[in-house]
Amino acid sequence: FWLSPLACAQSDPLPSWNDGATKSAITEFIARVTTEGGSNYVAPAERIAVFDNDGTLWSEQPVYFQFAFAIDRVKAMAPEHPEWKDSEPFRSIFAGDVKGALASGKKGVAEIMAVTHAGMTTDAFAGTVRDWIATARHPKFARPYDELIYQPMVELLAYLRANGFKTFIVSGGGVEFMRPWVENAYGIPPEQVVGTSGMVTYELNGDKPVLKKEAKIEFIDDGPGKPVGINRFIGRRPIFAAGNSDGDLQMLQWTTLNDGPRFALIVHHTDAEREFSYDRESQVGKLDKALDEAPGRGWTVVDMKSDWKTVYPAAKQ
Amino acid sequence: FWLSPLACAQSDPLPSWNDGATKSAITEFIARVTTEGGSNYVAPAERIAVFDNDGTLWSEQPVYFQFAFAIDRVKAMAPEHPEWKDSEPFRSIFAGDVKGALASGKKGVAEIMAVTHAGMTTDAFAGTVRDWIATARHPKFARPYDELIYQPMVELLAYLRANGFKTFIVSGGGVEFMRPWVENAYGIPPEQVVGTSGMVTYELNGDKPVLKKEAKIEFIDDGPGKPVGINRFIGRRPIFAAGNSDGDLQMLQWTTLNDGPRFALIVHHTDAEREFSYDRESQVGKLDKALDEAPGRGWTVVDMKSDWKTVYPAAKQ
Ligand SMILES: [Ca+2]
Ligand SMILES: [Ca+2]
Repeated sequence: FWLSPLACAQSDPLPSWNDGATKSAITEFIARVTTEGGSNYVAPAERIAVFDNDGTLWSEQPVYFQFAFAIDRVKAMAPEHPEWKDSEPFRSIFAGDVKGALASGKKGVAEIMAVTHAGMTTDAFAGTVRDWIATARHPKFARPYDELIYQPMVELLAYLRANGFKTFIVSGGGVEFMRPWVENAYGIPPEQVVGTSGMVTYELNGDKPVLKKEAKIEFIDDGPGKPVGINRFIGRRPIFAAGNSDGDLQMLQWTTLNDGPRFALIVHHTDAEREFSYDRESQVGKLDKALDEAPGRGWTVVDMKSDWKTVYPAAKQ
Repeated sequence: FWLSPLACAQSDPLPSWNDGATKSAITEFIARVTTEGGSNYVAPAERIAVFDNDGTLWSEQPVYFQFAFAIDRVKAMAPEHPEWKDSEPFRSIFAGDVKGALASGKKGVAEIMAVTHAGMTTDAFAGTVRDWIATARHPKFARPYDELIYQPMVELLAYLRANGFKTFIVSGGGVEFMRPWVENAYGIPPEQVVGTSGMVTYELNGDKPVLKKEAKIEFIDDGPGKPVGINRFIGRRPIFAAGNSDGDLQMLQWTTLNDGPRFALIVHHTDAEREFSYDRESQVGKLDKALDEAPGRGWTVVDMKSDWKTVYPAAKQ
């Protein structure tokens, strides 16, 4: 009632972004695709935006948060598994040596993920995720993991939705690990989360149907799997994509290498003080090929240190 | 402007449904879950409704329409495949003997599906589906297949959406076969279609990324696969489900055997004159176990002949 059009135009939809080329590129793109009658107008139904999660919407260092969850689950489950005490990768975990556990390689990591992510119902697993999100704390920031989300990206998601976009997560992370908390964190409902998934089987026990999680990967939503996941789950080609690593390269290509207005954004982790600084040499979130390809493709690279006024939202009480 | 509250209350949201127990069961359920403060109120985000497609939203006789599409594609592709002339199941198809082609069993049907649904890009496949929907005619009704949708079910979908529901298709049919036409037919966007899917691979050809359809099934969204597909794609448990065959049994169980208000509907094909009449003995859309289970579970069975005032929408010009 009290808002004049002028007041609306002046309110900043991206207050945590510093003014500059990156922010302008975003707002100019949104203006172009939403201007009816303009040559770059896109109908609302086609305004599909896809976001990687780890390193794009929340932090991913020193280890992927889902791996931190798995480590904590191994510790919590240890009393029921005395046999773990004498075998890797579990022995390293109990000794507090996560690097040692990772040194067990793909096989060890797969075993950690299998014992913590399978053998229970989908409902029971969602419960353990919710409990962990509520209680676990990040080693560097001593905050709940779901507070280590990027405030500028949360604003970007809301800004896109306010302009008629449907926002999706398209992540290499586990879909059942994300769904219990992303709606609250990002405003993205479960049905708009695409991720890596394990096999699930249906059982009817008396009058109680359950879905049981099996220790078998069904789909890896990473690298060339991301356009495949977008096609399978969304069935439309996005016009906006955001990522932070080479795992997003094909998603950014699939989004932008087509006719019409298209936008790709890469979050470059340049802020060792407020967050972490890493790219080409990192074990987690390696950004190399996509960074090389960005200038030629016209992809917008976010310099976290200079483009973001704040990184995380203020702590909740 | 001219509608008084009274006029609104009197306008019938389901004009193609005859008054009676079935229609009342639907409207009473919707009233219960949308009444704020009532004991059965369901928040809009949890108002998830899932619909089977073949035999539930459109007809499926004398053969699944996707199979009719495949038959037509084989004929269209024949000039490029002289080798098909002398081998089954193709020889039967060219002789106009669909039953003979089906007699080749699972292997023959799989071959027909593979050659017509794989080996091209997703975009090219969507184009052939759109062309077929625009030009093919049903053998009994001589109408385009996308006009053989059930007008009462189209009204039910719209009625649910007007009451805050998000409507999904959960079908044993191919997801890439449905997406090109279901939005126009039912108002359901591509991202709300769950179905059987084949493997797809990403390729970057120069600056042109494509997704290629492979001749390998990735997921069968039928029977116990339906709750699995609902979990994978939607990530919430529906409160409303509609189906027509034993392939929907587990979806109806998964939807209804839980706390809170829940609704399941079975379309029983009882109208040989206006549509088709079949159930327990049918090769296509066999309805046997689910029909037995319906009374004990409180599932609502639609008697097409008596519950539906009209079956199909009026022909377009
Ligand atoms: Ca990432
Ligand atoms: Ca069916």
